[in-house]
Amino acid sequence: RDRERQGMAKNTNMRWRLPLVCLLWELAMIVLFGVFVRFGAEADAHWEEEKQGMNLTSDMENDFYFRYPSFQDVHVMIFVGFGFLMTFLKRYGFGAVGFNFLLAAFGIQWALLMQGWFHSFKDGKILIGVENLINADFCVGSVCIAFGAILGKTSPIQLLVMTLFQVTLFSVNEYILLNLLHVKDAGGSMTIHTFGAYFGLTVTRILYRPNLEQSKDKQGSVYHSDLFAMIGTLYLWMYWPSFNSAISDHGDAQHRSAINTYCSLAACVLTTMAFSSMLQKKGKLDMVHIQNATLAGGVAVGTSAEMMLTPYGSLIVGSISGIVSTLGYVYFTPFLESRLHIQDTCGIHNLHAMPGLIGGIVGAITAAAATEDVYGKEGFIKAFDFTGVYQTRTPSIQGGFQAAGIVVSLLMAFAGGAIVGGILKLPIWGDAAAENCFEDGIYWEVPEDEESDVYHMHNPDKPASP
Amino acid sequence: RDRERQGMAKNTNMRWRLPLVCLLWELAMIVLFGVFVRFGAEADAHWEEEKQGMNLTSDMENDFYFRYPSFQDVHVMIFVGFGFLMTFLKRYGFGAVGFNFLLAAFGIQWALLMQGWFHSFKDGKILIGVENLINADFCVGSVCIAFGAILGKTSPIQLLVMTLFQVTLFSVNEYILLNLLHVKDAGGSMTIHTFGAYFGLTVTRILYRPNLEQSKDKQGSVYHSDLFAMIGTLYLWMYWPSFNSAISDHGDAQHRSAINTYCSLAACVLTTMAFSSMLQKKGKLDMVHIQNATLAGGVAVGTSAEMMLTPYGSLIVGSISGIVSTLGYVYFTPFLESRLHIQDTCGIHNLHAMPGLIGGIVGAITAAAATEDVYGKEGFIKAFDFTGVYQTRTPSIQGGFQAAGIVVSLLMAFAGGAIVGGILKLPIWGDAAAENCFEDGIYWEVPEDEESDVYHMHNPDKPASP
Amino acid sequence: RDRERQGMAKNTNMRWRLPLVCLLWELAMIVLFGVFVRFGAEADAHWEEEKQGMNLTSDMENDFYFRYPSFQDVHVMIFVGFGFLMTFLKRYGFGAVGFNFLLAAFGIQWALLMQGWFHSFKDGKILIGVENLINADFCVGSVCIAFGAILGKTSPIQLLVMTLFQVTLFSVNEYILLNLLHVKDAGGSMTIHTFGAYFGLTVTRILYRPNLEQSKDKQGSVYHSDLFAMIGTLYLWMYWPSFNSAISDHGDAQHRSAINTYCSLAACVLTTMAFSSMLQKKGKLDMVHIQNATLAGGVAVGTSAEMMLTPYGSLIVGSISGIVSTLGYVYFTPFLESRLHIQDTCGIHNLHAMPGLIGGIVGAITAAAATEDVYGKEGFIKAFDFTGVYQTRTPSIQGGFQAAGIVVSLLMAFAGGAIVGGILKLPIWGDAAAENCFEDGIYWEVPEDEESDVYHMHNPDKPASP
Repeated sequence: RDRERQGMAKNTNMRWRLPLVCLLWELAMIVLFGVFVRFGAEADAHWEEEKQGMNLTSDMENDFYFRYPSFQDVHVMIFVGFGFLMTFLKRYGFGAVGFNFLLAAFGIQWALLMQGWFHSFKDGKILIGVENLINADFCVGSVCIAFGAILGKTSPIQLLVMTLFQVTLFSVNEYILLNLLHVKDAGGSMTIHTFGAYFGLTVTRILYRPNLEQSKDKQGSVYHSDLFAMIGTLYLWMYWPSFNSAISDHGDAQHRSAINTYCSLAACVLTTMAFSSMLQKKGKLDMVHIQNATLAGGVAVGTSAEMMLTPYGSLIVGSISGIVSTLGYVYFTPFLESRLHIQDTCGIHNLHAMPGLIGGIVGAITAAAATEDVYGKEGFIKAFDFTGVYQTRTPSIQGGFQAAGIVVSLLMAFAGGAIVGGILKLPIWGDAAAENCFEDGIYWEVPEDEESDVYHMHNPDKPASP
Repeated sequence: RDRERQGMAKNTNMRWRLPLVCLLWELAMIVLFGVFVRFGAEADAHWEEEKQGMNLTSDMENDFYFRYPSFQDVHVMIFVGFGFLMTFLKRYGFGAVGFNFLLAAFGIQWALLMQGWFHSFKDGKILIGVENLINADFCVGSVCIAFGAILGKTSPIQLLVMTLFQVTLFSVNEYILLNLLHVKDAGGSMTIHTFGAYFGLTVTRILYRPNLEQSKDKQGSVYHSDLFAMIGTLYLWMYWPSFNSAISDHGDAQHRSAINTYCSLAACVLTTMAFSSMLQKKGKLDMVHIQNATLAGGVAVGTSAEMMLTPYGSLIVGSISGIVSTLGYVYFTPFLESRLHIQDTCGIHNLHAMPGLIGGIVGAITAAAATEDVYGKEGFIKAFDFTGVYQTRTPSIQGGFQAAGIVVSLLMAFAGGAIVGGILKLPIWGDAAAENCFEDGIYWEVPEDEESDVYHMHNPDKPASP
Repeated sequence: RDRERQGMAKNTNMRWRLPLVCLLWELAMIVLFGVFVRFGAEADAHWEEEKQGMNLTSDMENDFYFRYPSFQDVHVMIFVGFGFLMTFLKRYGFGAVGFNFLLAAFGIQWALLMQGWFHSFKDGKILIGVENLINADFCVGSVCIAFGAILGKTSPIQLLVMTLFQVTLFSVNEYILLNLLHVKDAGGSMTIHTFGAYFGLTVTRILYRPNLEQSKDKQGSVYHSDLFAMIGTLYLWMYWPSFNSAISDHGDAQHRSAINTYCSLAACVLTTMAFSSMLQKKGKLDMVHIQNATLAGGVAVGTSAEMMLTPYGSLIVGSISGIVSTLGYVYFTPFLESRLHIQDTCGIHNLHAMPGLIGGIVGAITAAAATEDVYGKEGFIKAFDFTGVYQTRTPSIQGGFQAAGIVVSLLMAFAGGAIVGGILKLPIWGDAAAENCFEDGIYWEVPEDEESDVYHMHNPDKPASP
């Protein structure tokens, strides 16, 4: 109880700070949306007239019908997928789901603005449609990834501050990659995973807590929390084909992305199970690996899924990423913590950082290897947008730019993470003391658990103590 | 044990009553479906020929492809969303999910008939398609809302009786609003939420139980039950854009509804978190607020989402509704219970009643403020169906009718709730005694919990008592 | 502890065996995919040019948009639906979700090949698109069903071996039915449910464990595990309309399948609840029935959903199947175990076998009763593919072939199950001793449950023992 009092010495009371941040920022969103955000043509009531101008005969041609089902899948991934994946901790389920909910809800608003200024800005207004919603969710995905590294160790205000900066930096990085380098990255191996993960790892390095072993007992899971986490895992796994295909070109590109991702993920499960069993003396499977490394296959085809990676190419990439990711959990995570002082709660280095790098590299190779023979003349131009000023770009040059995209993402992540980590280190954000980490009771009203009492009611003949 | 015997004095044995009601009513459904229900043109095998008559060149023009993805999202909201949202009680999870399942499964059948007679009746037959399925789910949604007020205090037969009457009244009210008043309400702020919530609140008032504090210990949550409830919350939150856009006009209207709802819900999360923390002495967040008030933003744009509310308008509405709803949980619910004897288990007054009213009012204002300039000439007519006898209706008149829709919904809810509450008060339905409320053991076979024993097996060295 | 040591006498260590099987088989997949699998026309980058040849003006005509939303729903059913449905056991949640994940991830790869050779083979290549993904998921569905019979009693290697053989036999059976008998079975009453269930029942009969009562204490559920199982139930129930309509013809057939399935499932819930209550002395509902028998309605319209079964026909079929299935749980399962030595962990005989047979029979009757009057001239031909060599087939002959399809599926299931059961009986696969069945600790790292300790931390004033 002494330690608890000492913990309280760190003021974790959110009463005025959190409301202030939430309300002021939401007010800012309202003002900025009021000034800048309007419906895009396909969501505006003028569409009836617009349609005629565009010679469209059917409402089906509205982008809504091409992308809305994928959008909803992506939405589930961000809120249920990431949220529940992180509930594996025995006493941090409220924080995992709840803070993920908070940061993502703020992040998507800010992302609509940031990405809008870069990509959908026309005559002083940001014109939004379903594709903007998907991109906002994507952007927030990179924050959810970073959240995984600092899970349990930060206050909700720190998370909001991180979201504000990370969304901003994400949008800049994305602009550099997609517009300046003219790089393809529909599933975000580079923009979402590589950037998000190394950003988060840098932040957690800066926030290094030397005494974290004081809450070691709360860093594990319990039986039921592992099942809750599997809800997150499975929704991420099942909907990843939608993630990677959500903003690809209409038609064959969306179709192809979904197939490649489906194949990669299936292969990844087998190699993950194999290595999980192999690396344990008694050959038992480890839930941590199943919950996380099985998803690496989705990350690792994020860039190349919409390209002609082919189903067997996807199986190869998926297989490798499952192996790398599982090895990471067994060997890398302890090494990062003990030697580099990188405390990575969810192991995002294994699930997002390394597979993200693989994804960037596979994308560069697949692009460099593209030929008109494989894509068809028109398909080739369409797949890589070799039009306008990029008309003369060759596959090998494209591969080079893709590789440059990885480097830029890494640099942005390290630099951005260092700055933001520094800001988060300020002693004003209300983070908990080391011995109170991974504990919902600090920021949440936690119900008194009287389960045992309730059970006894049902077994009145049973003595009170089991 | 005395109290338990006394509880049994109230005969809660469902053995013959529940089967009788279920089987007779299902038989009635079969007969009525046999007489009345047939496939609509787009689901009938004659569609092949029909298509040619309608000059359609593509199967894509079948309404199925415009609405089926939204239908499935709505379906998830009704069964998983509402079902799991109510599992927060520590010992009423089976009842929450199971009774919600039962009443919704019956309700959708009865709603297909009731709504069919009003809206899809042609040559003596009800012709159904995917839009009817969505509307049936919507109608049942209003029953799920009312269920929230009486959760834990009623027998399954009472719920079925309530469903029978509420679906009927819903359909009448919906007919008055949509057809007689020519009101727009695609997301059902008035027809679903306002009606459903005030209906449920009236019913629970009539069923007032003065001794309910006898089961106070079971009215709370436990750690895991709060996580189960978050599954419900998140699926409602994520799929609400589909809910509000599911039956909007094809094209821009569906697109716009989804965007407005997305924005409103995002804003709502921030203001809910802010007020949840602010209203608690230690600034800790309350799961009850996060589970419920975060959804108020979806309710509050139910009427106006398909209109040109604009993204910033949605942010404003969402922000306000989150605040109102959270304040409701902290101040209104206790007041309603202690002063007005309204025992509202899930706080539907805060999540559906007040935000529903806000939704109706915002809808009326948005409609009254509509101009041809904002909607475009054709868009204006299409958005409000200002055709035929309504050709001359102006926005301000439409706004007036929208406001009238709120009043009608309220009157129907109060009158209907009073009558149905009276019927449910009859001592023949097998409801439990006050001390057995919120307890699955009354109506369900509950497994003996031997968790502790199982755990010990794993820790053979640990003494039996923790 | 003696027994535990004895259990260990059976070598359940997976360390080298499981990795070897996973890695070698995945390697085989890569090689076979490399040789055989390519993108179908609609997923290939040549689609741009292809489209013009096919005179398609819109990307919307890509099959992706007709089927992808249904595919994702089916995907959820296989991984979350089946996975979580089986988590009802108190200490086998990891195995239920995890092994289902493993076998399905392998199975879909092998199914893409097997079904591809039979149905999508062209010029030496298997050309895949979204329909192949759905069919692969379907095929694996039959393995998930069989898994239900042997749940808790087999090693992961046994499951992989069973998957390898069952997918093969499934594909042969499917080819016989769809291609040689020209039978309709879009929702797989025969190919998926009848075949999968009787296959699994035969396997479990061969693997009969006389001493299984030694782990009887672990064959039950606990309160929370029943709620996890309801997640599986509801996702299966909600998405079943997508399952039965996923590979139906574009347009009215998909539309009709969804409606019929929706109706059947709704009715099924009511009759299940009725009989669950009726068959229990105190009239209490049994979670086992609610979790399973409510789904029988989806199985039982699997063949006929895309036909003109009509909504009331669906209600009748759903009602009957709910009754049969619930009766099965109460009377058949104990009988099968005690008399026929068929130990059916999940009761797949009640959920899949009997309703599957009903589905096959209803399909045969519905086909035999088809008339040009009901279907329209063109609709009639399209619904049953009465083209080419089948031009002269009459409905009654079709009905006969449908019936033959049931018989063939049964024979394949019994013969295949017997052979595969024999293979799985070999003492090399690492299955657990009888007293260790239904216990995750054998194959999984299970977290030490320190919940009690954690709880106490929150109630420092409470004595350690509840």
